[in-house]
Amino acid sequence: MKSKFLPLEKIKIDDPFWNGFIELVRREVIPYQYEALHDRIEGVEKSYCIENFKKAAKSDGSVKYPVDKWCYDDHNADENAFHGWVFQDSDAYKWLEAVAYSLINHPDSALEARADGVIDLICAAQLENGYLDTLYIINDRDRIFTNLRDFHELYCFGHLAEAAVAYYQATGKDKLLNAALKFADLICDTFGKDKKRGYGGHEIAELALVKLYDLTGEEKYLDTARFFINERGKKPYYFDLERGKETKEDNYFYNQAHAQPKNQHEAVGHAVRAVYLYSGMADIAERCGDTELARACRDIFADIVNRKMYITGGIGSTVHGEAFTYPFDLPNDLAYCETCASIGLIFFAQRMSAIEDNPVFAATAERALYNTVLAGMAEDGKSFFYVNPLEVNPTASRLDERKRHIKPIRQRWFSCACCPPNLARIISSLGAYAYSENEDTLFIHQYIGGAVNTESAFVSVDSDYTESGRVKITVSPKRKMKLAVRIPDWYSDEGYRYYDIDRERVIELNFTPEVKLIKCSNLVAANIGKAAVTRGPFVYCAEGVDNGESLQLLRLSPTGNFTKQGEFIIADGYREKPDNDLYMEYKSSELSETKIKLLPYYRWGNRGENEMSVYLPLNTKY
Amino acid sequence: MKSKFLPLEKIKIDDPFWNGFIELVRREVIPYQYEALHDRIEGVEKSYCIENFKKAAKSDGSVKYPVDKWCYDDHNADENAFHGWVFQDSDAYKWLEAVAYSLINHPDSALEARADGVIDLICAAQLENGYLDTLYIINDRDRIFTNLRDFHELYCFGHLAEAAVAYYQATGKDKLLNAALKFADLICDTFGKDKKRGYGGHEIAELALVKLYDLTGEEKYLDTARFFINERGKKPYYFDLERGKETKEDNYFYNQAHAQPKNQHEAVGHAVRAVYLYSGMADIAERCGDTELARACRDIFADIVNRKMYITGGIGSTVHGEAFTYPFDLPNDLAYCETCASIGLIFFAQRMSAIEDNPVFAATAERALYNTVLAGMAEDGKSFFYVNPLEVNPTASRLDERKRHIKPIRQRWFSCACCPPNLARIISSLGAYAYSENEDTLFIHQYIGGAVNTESAFVSVDSDYTESGRVKITVSPKRKMKLAVRIPDWYSDEGYRYYDIDRERVIELNFTPEVKLIKCSNLVAANIGKAAVTRGPFVYCAEGVDNGESLQLLRLSPTGNFTKQGEFIIADGYREKPDNDLYMEYKSSELSETKIKLLPYYRWGNRGENEMSVYLPLNTKY
Repeated sequence: MKSKFLPLEKIKIDDPFWNGFIELVRREVIPYQYEALHDRIEGVEKSYCIENFKKAAKSDGSVKYPVDKWCYDDHNADENAFHGWVFQDSDAYKWLEAVAYSLINHPDSALEARADGVIDLICAAQLENGYLDTLYIINDRDRIFTNLRDFHELYCFGHLAEAAVAYYQATGKDKLLNAALKFADLICDTFGKDKKRGYGGHEIAELALVKLYDLTGEEKYLDTARFFINERGKKPYYFDLERGKETKEDNYFYNQAHAQPKNQHEAVGHAVRAVYLYSGMADIAERCGDTELARACRDIFADIVNRKMYITGGIGSTVHGEAFTYPFDLPNDLAYCETCASIGLIFFAQRMSAIEDNPVFAATAERALYNTVLAGMAEDGKSFFYVNPLEVNPTASRLDERKRHIKPIRQRWFSCACCPPNLARIISSLGAYAYSENEDTLFIHQYIGGAVNTESAFVSVDSDYTESGRVKITVSPKRKMKLAVRIPDWYSDEGYRYYDIDRERVIELNFTPEVKLIKCSNLVAANIGKAAVTRGPFVYCAEGVDNGESLQLLRLSPTGNFTKQGEFIIADGYREKPDNDLYMEYKSSELSETKIKLLPYYRWGNRGENEMSVYLPLNTKY
Repeated sequence: MKSKFLPLEKIKIDDPFWNGFIELVRREVIPYQYEALHDRIEGVEKSYCIENFKKAAKSDGSVKYPVDKWCYDDHNADENAFHGWVFQDSDAYKWLEAVAYSLINHPDSALEARADGVIDLICAAQLENGYLDTLYIINDRDRIFTNLRDFHELYCFGHLAEAAVAYYQATGKDKLLNAALKFADLICDTFGKDKKRGYGGHEIAELALVKLYDLTGEEKYLDTARFFINERGKKPYYFDLERGKETKEDNYFYNQAHAQPKNQHEAVGHAVRAVYLYSGMADIAERCGDTELARACRDIFADIVNRKMYITGGIGSTVHGEAFTYPFDLPNDLAYCETCASIGLIFFAQRMSAIEDNPVFAATAERALYNTVLAGMAEDGKSFFYVNPLEVNPTASRLDERKRHIKPIRQRWFSCACCPPNLARIISSLGAYAYSENEDTLFIHQYIGGAVNTESAFVSVDSDYTESGRVKITVSPKRKMKLAVRIPDWYSDEGYRYYDIDRERVIELNFTPEVKLIKCSNLVAANIGKAAVTRGPFVYCAEGVDNGESLQLLRLSPTGNFTKQGEFIIADGYREKPDNDLYMEYKSSELSETKIKLLPYYRWGNRGENEMSVYLPLNTKY
């Protein structure tokens, strides 16, 4: 059953679990990132983001600089040239998008004024014809749209459009929206059937154009989004054509451009790019009733959740290309699991929920949200994980090249800072993932306390979902309608439960979150003989600070007790005595009873560098 | 108790296990490599080795080419310039060394004539002053000895000297020896206290100079070897000085040049370089009675065998720098375990056995020899492993960048072909690792059937060591003496057993090789809940071709039977039913009884691409 997600303006959040995060983003993350974008934070790498917009506004394009790499961090480079990553503009857009959502929840005129200032800078940089990407505006306008594979013009456009729609919806101000539409018009004029047949190497323009279409009703935005998706992966590859050669060895899996999306049935390549594309595909499938594309989306989603997703909702098993690998390759200590990829997985899941009421989509969004996405941010909102492994040994992170990407502690800011502003925008817009509606049914996909006011009903949600599992829903219908609530997959496999509503009704749900021992498929070699502990939506982990060194010596007892103690779960278990010899004839190990202290995964790494592991060996036969 | 290893001339090999390998090297490997050195094998990468010697002989040094990288494989390069790796000369030397040993065992005038031909080419390339490295002779003589860190002049010299000594001992011909001595003289004139204070970035010159000293009695060779070792790691670092800067970030662990060898107590850096250095250190410790250096050697050896060595005798846990990592980091599926590193470990172990009669040294040599070293060569002698992992999944090798170095099947020849000729030389000279002697005792370190004729006795060894474990030793003493035989560590922890011999005596040893289940220390996270199977000196493994896909589904039964069936061991065990769901609430798995078929590790990969695993999960509590 199809439905449409409700816009943020119709939703109020007031939730004992989430209020704190939303406030943290508002009070800490958004101001911190504003400073970071302006290169005013000492001791962290420069962003150059705002600086590039200023340079672009001043530039008349007469002096040229090279456009030949992904990152311009050479400190000897000409100071008038573009600096930072090719996608640096997008950080400002993501920040603005987060600000917009935050303003909806919490009006703040000082913040709005700051945002307006940034928007003025952005608009000042835009070219007369609508083009807006500071790398090319500053460095070389003759080469605009000549390297779609590697550089990020269409990607930056996508984030611009998303920010513009959000800011317009939050404030009613259309300056940024007009800039985005002007750039969108240029893109629609440039790309198409009898025009340039290209598409972006880093997808997002597709879903962004659909947002512009949804807002304006302008068909050409939908057509161009659909063109990008249909054109992708056609042979001869556009990415070969644009560089004037046929790269036989390059299969473009990295860019999901190896085949036409309608013929893609497995998640491949760079994980963030992938889920952004899949989101756009789902949008087009829904808007255009494209069943072939919807089928591809379903297959890809199934491939992810059945074969390529960590228990934490993390995706991307390798640092090489920050990418998906092959089925059941889910190494704990080498995982990539970029925060942005899990955010993108939520985007994809939300769009699939709009196409059909299969609970797997919202359940997957929940898994990603409460574990990998939340883990991306420190409890003080000032440091962030880009990579979210399931097993960390600080010694390995320090000494092992293979694990150099695995940080045992969150970092303050990244030069490639895609994750922090992405985190800010999703946490500020949580409500947008909670409710959808069609002619007769209002769906509750996520339990986030607050209220929603739709055409069919006023619904208030009093939620203690994460703690006691109790949720009280009060529905005041405006007409006869149905309410569909998602029964969490960790509670039962019921899926959506439907209520006929013809008068005010209070629905009390009680999803008592039991502690569970979860086993991973034995096709995942890394997890043989191990289990993870969950409670409600949360995956737990053990940290060295609570359990001592060498977490692999712990043994969870499958028949033992689990006790919740504040934020911790205390599990019955054992600790194996460390072996002195490297090799010895097999003998049972010496175990001593111990209590294993487990913490929600999203909370790890807030107490200094130490070991961490989600999976622990079981003291049992298989 | 100190002793000296006996030279090959005094040893005859006749062993049911080893004869085949020695013949394989003689009949297949040596001729094959001769062709490879001459670039006459189709479909494999060119060596350029012989070609470089020819170019060097013709060159007058007037035309210069760059000397700026490790590998010159640019097919557009000037055809008169040097081609291949900077250490390409050494392949000819290692081939000659293998030929020399083979000639001792099995005279072959045609082979000797070929070797003489190669020696003529080598000598024709040597400069008047003794210098001999074709890279610099061809490309730029002005830059000789200016980049000791990265380029391999002293390394090539080392292999030249080893080959020269071997060829002289095998044939009595001194042409190559004179070339080596001339180059050695130049090195002694160039490096020293009031001369150039450098040392080689890739060690081996140290142990090679000791070989020249042992043969000639010329003190300066020993002095220069000792200089290289004492100078190494002194601050300021020579490697910084030679490039005129202080590289604060570069600690030279990779080259074992981070500290003076006498102050080194852990195995670090590139594993082959490391064990070659440690071998030279042990030589100097023994020849010079340097107890500080001997202590460092003991500590390093202990660090390797107690913390950094795979059960197969493989060393080097990472492809990054082909290097040692940190204690107990022994991943099965990411191992490097270069064949050459295990060969070098045998060199180091042999030298330590000469310093003291601690059985750990020869036991370690045995472990490396019967497992990693032998695994390096296919059963037809025509293809080779450079890397020897303990777990292989062909899908991962194909798709996973992290495992690109893990080949599921042996390769025909490598452009960087250090391992095949190194294998050839050690298999052809096995006897040299078997016996040592001092004034009153003859030691048998390895049981390799044959005979040895020393000043104290004639000893014949009738060995069925690898199969039944029976060894019959007949000693005919020439004077009152002692015989010390090593009791294998897998049989008992007795160490060396001493016999007083004053008349002919037959000693029958019966090391019945039981099948054992071996556990790895629980400080190695990768092996928790698993075990490996051994029998005698052999480590076994499971292959997919015998046991079906997904080897992680097998469960060894620690209380089950093990039956030897030809070369296989058949173990009682179970196979777990593959899980359909990626995540599920914990439950015991469905097991079906199965027989697990295990093959000696060195035999794996001879039946096409398939999965392989040394460690298998146990069906037991920990």
